[in-house]
Amino acid sequence: MWPDMRIQDLLGIELPIIQAPMAGANGTAMAIAVAQAGGLGSLPCAMLSVEQLRQQFASIRRATPKPINLNFFCHRAPTVDAAREAQWQQQLAPYYRELGIDADAPIASASRAPFDQRYCELVEELKPEVVSFHFGMPDAVLLDRVRASGAKVLSSATTVAEARWLEARGCDAVIAQGAEAGGHRGMFLSTDVATQIGTFALLPQIVDAVRVPVIASGGIADARGIVAAFALGAAAVQIGTAYLLTPEATISPVHRAALLQAQDDQTALTNLFSGRPARGIVNRLMREQGPISDKVPDFPLAGGALAPLRAKAEPAGSGDFMSLWSGQAARLAVAMPAGELTRKLAAEALAQLQR
Amino acid sequence: MWPDMRIQDLLGIELPIIQAPMAGANGTAMAIAVAQAGGLGSLPCAMLSVEQLRQQFASIRRATPKPINLNFFCHRAPTVDAAREAQWQQQLAPYYRELGIDADAPIASASRAPFDQRYCELVEELKPEVVSFHFGMPDAVLLDRVRASGAKVLSSATTVAEARWLEARGCDAVIAQGAEAGGHRGMFLSTDVATQIGTFALLPQIVDAVRVPVIASGGIADARGIVAAFALGAAAVQIGTAYLLTPEATISPVHRAALLQAQDDQTALTNLFSGRPARGIVNRLMREQGPISDKVPDFPLAGGALAPLRAKAEPAGSGDFMSLWSGQAARLAVAMPAGELTRKLAAEALAQLQR
Repeated sequence: MWPDMRIQDLLGIELPIIQAPMAGANGTAMAIAVAQAGGLGSLPCAMLSVEQLRQQFASIRRATPKPINLNFFCHRAPTVDAAREAQWQQQLAPYYRELGIDADAPIASASRAPFDQRYCELVEELKPEVVSFHFGMPDAVLLDRVRASGAKVLSSATTVAEARWLEARGCDAVIAQGAEAGGHRGMFLSTDVATQIGTFALLPQIVDAVRVPVIASGGIADARGIVAAFALGAAAVQIGTAYLLTPEATISPVHRAALLQAQDDQTALTNLFSGRPARGIVNRLMREQGPISDKVPDFPLAGGALAPLRAKAEPAGSGDFMSLWSGQAARLAVAMPAGELTRKLAAEALAQLQR
Repeated sequence: MWPDMRIQDLLGIELPIIQAPMAGANGTAMAIAVAQAGGLGSLPCAMLSVEQLRQQFASIRRATPKPINLNFFCHRAPTVDAAREAQWQQQLAPYYRELGIDADAPIASASRAPFDQRYCELVEELKPEVVSFHFGMPDAVLLDRVRASGAKVLSSATTVAEARWLEARGCDAVIAQGAEAGGHRGMFLSTDVATQIGTFALLPQIVDAVRVPVIASGGIADARGIVAAFALGAAAVQIGTAYLLTPEATISPVHRAALLQAQDDQTALTNLFSGRPARGIVNRLMREQGPISDKVPDFPLAGGALAPLRAKAEPAGSGDFMSLWSGQAARLAVAMPAGELTRKLAAEALAQLQR
């Protein structure tokens, strides 16, 4: 038996495994497969329009009645700073010249929208069992409406202070996001990546600081990590990178190939691709411009000027100018279908727990 | 019973707990107390002269026949670069003026010596049961002599590549030093702190990569951490910060007070105090000059110009200009005598393992 059933009881799932919502890297297929296997399937919504989200949720509902997590970003919408944008474009100009791209072509606008009135109405309409947030939580009015819809609410903390903040505002369970995690840091009370905390130290300190159940994330990609997370006081785990190797992941062949080759010491936190710190495999742009730069526009605007570079490089097989999100434990992951992976992780963790 | 006995069998100890050697922060009293409690007591030797080391080892041997670990640094002795030293002194000049210190007073020389012929002769004379190294290992000639003396050899790896390097050169067990760890990073194949790896991700990847037993370190300060380390494949743990709160620690009241107040998100890796990256509690110097700066002289020379600042500030109760080494899990530590702490950690871990 699982040593802790609080998350299963809270969310109505069989297994204490949450598939991390990964904007741009997973859609309905992964969420459905994980939900059907007994974990919590998650649909990242920050890059979906209201209409796309409505359609995708409907397709999930047609496939499974199991609980589903809709994930939204809670960043403040950026104020466009023309000077800063120009500085960033100038910084990237040599790459434009190298790839033969017209620097005067229009730049794509930000593709990640914060949770707002329209999304909130859709949550009230769709009634997902779980709503999770990244970068904090929405304001109290919207949050109350989400909770009144019946959804359980999760959000990520990268420090004890953030965990306390989330609990005080009514978060039903807190995701302790250790520094090992791939993709965007959920940090919202601090912008200092130098003080971000590894899972091993963060998780038990958050467990000690809050009463709500704590979900471990960051560096967990096999059964050993699940068992260790329980030992440190977690009630469940959230797994991201391991699901990137499943056929359900919507990442490109370039990203997939990079994940299959990434060593333990080949990722870093970078703000180049979006304006916010996120962990990815070190590539040319990170080596030459960062990994952290003070020249990037606010989240998510930094990505705009990079889009033409990626559009040219990626089809030619180059990951030089794209985010290659990955946690630090990609080497522990085994490529297999998402449902099978979920069941395998649970079975192996249970077997190890019973030894 | 412990799930893995390889380290106890290898080193001749009862408990799979190694007290981290902490140069400047522990001497014979802590090593004796931990050894008598059944763990591996460690004496940091990098700041001891040959004669001091001989005397301290004799006093340990009078107190206990249990296995002892002598720890040495393996850095390359620095080449003094006058321009670089001058640049660093200029950088610190405003602090000298603020504290009313004569900037022309002579600077103390480096206080950390690498393992060499003289230390090696002493190892052959003293025959400690265990010798551990930081920053790699000594050259093959010296290492062969250490091994021929009968000592088991340990060293720290911060990446899988470093673990493989150590194993290939005959290290008997590898310490997987996760990024949460306090004090100096053992890194020796890379100087890039941005790609350093959290314990949760590093430990199982090193376990998978080498055949020798792996000792977990970084973020472990209570029984939960010990149990989690075993779940991830460790055969033992090395604990540092928790021992800093024991009365046997030779740290100053300023350092002790800082540890008692440090929150999870108040440490960072810094190279300011020695020239090499080490984790400490963020203080004024780190905020104003770093935490990482490219202006510092090579290890360990950076500390020289800081010594007068510390000598003036610390007696007045200020930790502004001194290293306040700490891992990320100081909040998990409980202040008690080192022997008692060792027994308590072991008993609680065994109890949790048997649940």
